[in-house]
Amino acid sequence: MNTMTVEATMHALGAQARSASHRMAVASTHEKALALRALARLLREQSASLQADNAKDVERAIASGLAAPMVDRLRLTDKALETAAQGCEQLADMPDVIGEIIGLRQRPSGIRVGQMRVPLGVFGMIYESRPNVTIEAASLAIKSGNACILRGGSEAIESNKALAALVRQALQHAGLPQDGVQLVPTTERAAVGYLITMPEYVDVVIPRGGRGLIERISREAKVPVIKHLDGICHTYVDDPCDLAQAVVIADNAKTQKYSPCNATETLLVARGVAAAFLPQIARVYADKGVEMRVTDEAAPLVQIAGAHVVPATEQDWHTEYLAPIISIKLVAGLDEAIAHINTYGSHHTDAIITTDHRHAQRFLREVDSASVMVNASTRFADGFEYGLGAEIGISTDKFHARGPVGVEGLTSLKYVVLGDGEIRQ
Amino acid sequence: MNTMTVEATMHALGAQARSASHRMAVASTHEKALALRALARLLREQSASLQADNAKDVERAIASGLAAPMVDRLRLTDKALETAAQGCEQLADMPDVIGEIIGLRQRPSGIRVGQMRVPLGVFGMIYESRPNVTIEAASLAIKSGNACILRGGSEAIESNKALAALVRQALQHAGLPQDGVQLVPTTERAAVGYLITMPEYVDVVIPRGGRGLIERISREAKVPVIKHLDGICHTYVDDPCDLAQAVVIADNAKTQKYSPCNATETLLVARGVAAAFLPQIARVYADKGVEMRVTDEAAPLVQIAGAHVVPATEQDWHTEYLAPIISIKLVAGLDEAIAHINTYGSHHTDAIITTDHRHAQRFLREVDSASVMVNASTRFADGFEYGLGAEIGISTDKFHARGPVGVEGLTSLKYVVLGDGEIRQ
Repeated sequence: MNTMTVEATMHALGAQARSASHRMAVASTHEKALALRALARLLREQSASLQADNAKDVERAIASGLAAPMVDRLRLTDKALETAAQGCEQLADMPDVIGEIIGLRQRPSGIRVGQMRVPLGVFGMIYESRPNVTIEAASLAIKSGNACILRGGSEAIESNKALAALVRQALQHAGLPQDGVQLVPTTERAAVGYLITMPEYVDVVIPRGGRGLIERISREAKVPVIKHLDGICHTYVDDPCDLAQAVVIADNAKTQKYSPCNATETLLVARGVAAAFLPQIARVYADKGVEMRVTDEAAPLVQIAGAHVVPATEQDWHTEYLAPIISIKLVAGLDEAIAHINTYGSHHTDAIITTDHRHAQRFLREVDSASVMVNASTRFADGFEYGLGAEIGISTDKFHARGPVGVEGLTSLKYVVLGDGEIRQ
Repeated sequence: MNTMTVEATMHALGAQARSASHRMAVASTHEKALALRALARLLREQSASLQADNAKDVERAIASGLAAPMVDRLRLTDKALETAAQGCEQLADMPDVIGEIIGLRQRPSGIRVGQMRVPLGVFGMIYESRPNVTIEAASLAIKSGNACILRGGSEAIESNKALAALVRQALQHAGLPQDGVQLVPTTERAAVGYLITMPEYVDVVIPRGGRGLIERISREAKVPVIKHLDGICHTYVDDPCDLAQAVVIADNAKTQKYSPCNATETLLVARGVAAAFLPQIARVYADKGVEMRVTDEAAPLVQIAGAHVVPATEQDWHTEYLAPIISIKLVAGLDEAIAHINTYGSHHTDAIITTDHRHAQRFLREVDSASVMVNASTRFADGFEYGLGAEIGISTDKFHARGPVGVEGLTSLKYVVLGDGEIRQ
């Protein structure tokens, strides 16, 4: 495909998405459920054929020397397909928020004013290897009444084409326009450039991937972007706190999984509890092979048999390790902890472990992050855990949507005015 | 001021705003009310001195040959100052939405998840002649817990400096940082360029002014922009409807004031009621000197003594007259009305006049505008009329905020998680 053809292709996709979006926006709850259940059924019925298409991607990836963990992320296993199917069914069962009117109240003029939740229109989704994102994005588009244009990674193109074909079948089955969900058919990089610069067709773009991709898209986009940048998350162990709880949470927040963005990267410890707390958590981290990068002051408290202790540098407070490494710092108390988090954090997810009510309230209010937690693991920052049904991404922005983005993040509120002949005086 | 100095000035303002924003965000309801009431008092006490400063702007404007209506918009009359003072007092009396937690619910994991309303941080406001916008923006910043940087028109610089000085006094009186509200001290145009490209200091920019200004800012901004573009508003007179109500509303929507963005520019009339309705409204418009630009089909129905009737062209459906002109078209019914509005409208405000419940519901749902109304004048689309207390602008965007933007539009929701030792399994 030459550049001209890519441009023409993207404009055609855009125009078709915009046109389909009007019908998607007024789809009934029943029609949307019908489409989602049909999609779940097709994913199960067609699993053999899907896996045959997926095998082409996997073979090509192996032949091209892609690293094994990346190849694994490509695979549409039975389990991955079943999870995707269940996700569609869960969404079908959730309440439909589209069209709901909130806050309707009477005004002195006689009119009643409220706000109706409506879809944004068309969203563009740009993502990398995992083909199941195709189903997550498509199912959220259907539930939220949006049209979408999906741009998956080139390494998953055969899998994504097969999945997108099923989505279109499901839409047709429910009497909804097939163009409600479209996959960019070309792997040319230029396609992304068009997708993010067509405000006449695309209302918001959601990139999922590495920092480089997201920064480039944010810089070049002519439409709003829901950005998910770093997760430099903190757990602050306050004085006073329940020490046993602090150990369990600090363990889970770091070690339950190392790669997610909501894993804790920095542990802040109030001086008053450091001598009691640090040796205990150091024992846990040492046993699990977690490297501790600590300030001079904290070092003696974590130097136990088997511990891997390294002096922390300024750079550590800025670093998202996504690995068995944690930075540790002592602080005077709540004020210093909040200041550290607001300075070095990435406004993603931060937790306090405390038994002091006022400390908890101040932490919730004053830490400027998308998710703020009391006595819980930062690993909970997730659309499923929050009850959003599904998650299209996690926003580290403040504008429009913050934190895990589900159906509501793909909607906006318009004003509704109900009158009976009222006029402005 | 040379370019280097403007850059340094703007960066200093930005850094000061960001720093002040942390304190503004945690200001108590009481502190904010104290500041707003002090500002109201100062506006009244200092009215003579404010008007002396304002007179300098007015004299300069007259000397430079500014048109009389523009000079009028500059004037800080007794009435304008009293309105501004009352606006501050009204905001002080309104409930404080900052810090409120909504939707707190228990999850199967044991955690409770809700959302807390928090300020966006720092907003930049770019506006033209009317100096009272300085007080509207400052008071909304205080109430919403944001810091702000105000860039008023150069023609109002003396007035704005005097008003901003009072705002800073009021903030100090309440123990809040004076840099919570800052006025750009220079009239150099380059200042705007910096204000809209400092994402490290400014979270959102709100331009108020002509289409050219807003389009330029949207194009060049590196921060989110709350845009207010055209108001091509429609009133659709449905079949069936209450004809008397339709006449009263179509009159008010067009003629109560010609210049506001929420005035109706196009009247769509269902064929079934056209013969009964159009002669009546034509009588009203003819008496008030409103020019009617009509389709061939509608022409015979509005041709009455004294009427100024002109054939409508395609361009008329795209035009925001802001003048005693209205375009009129007959449509088959609801479907054609909705299609016309979604094609030619500016997604601002549109109304249906109907007695059919299903038509009303479909219009509310399917018209893709920031405000959709049933049996009410489009002129109601306004922050005060909607009960927002004040309005910093009207958004014609879908992202983040739609329609009149008050305190809530200057906030976002962060997730709050309350646990008691829960960890992720």
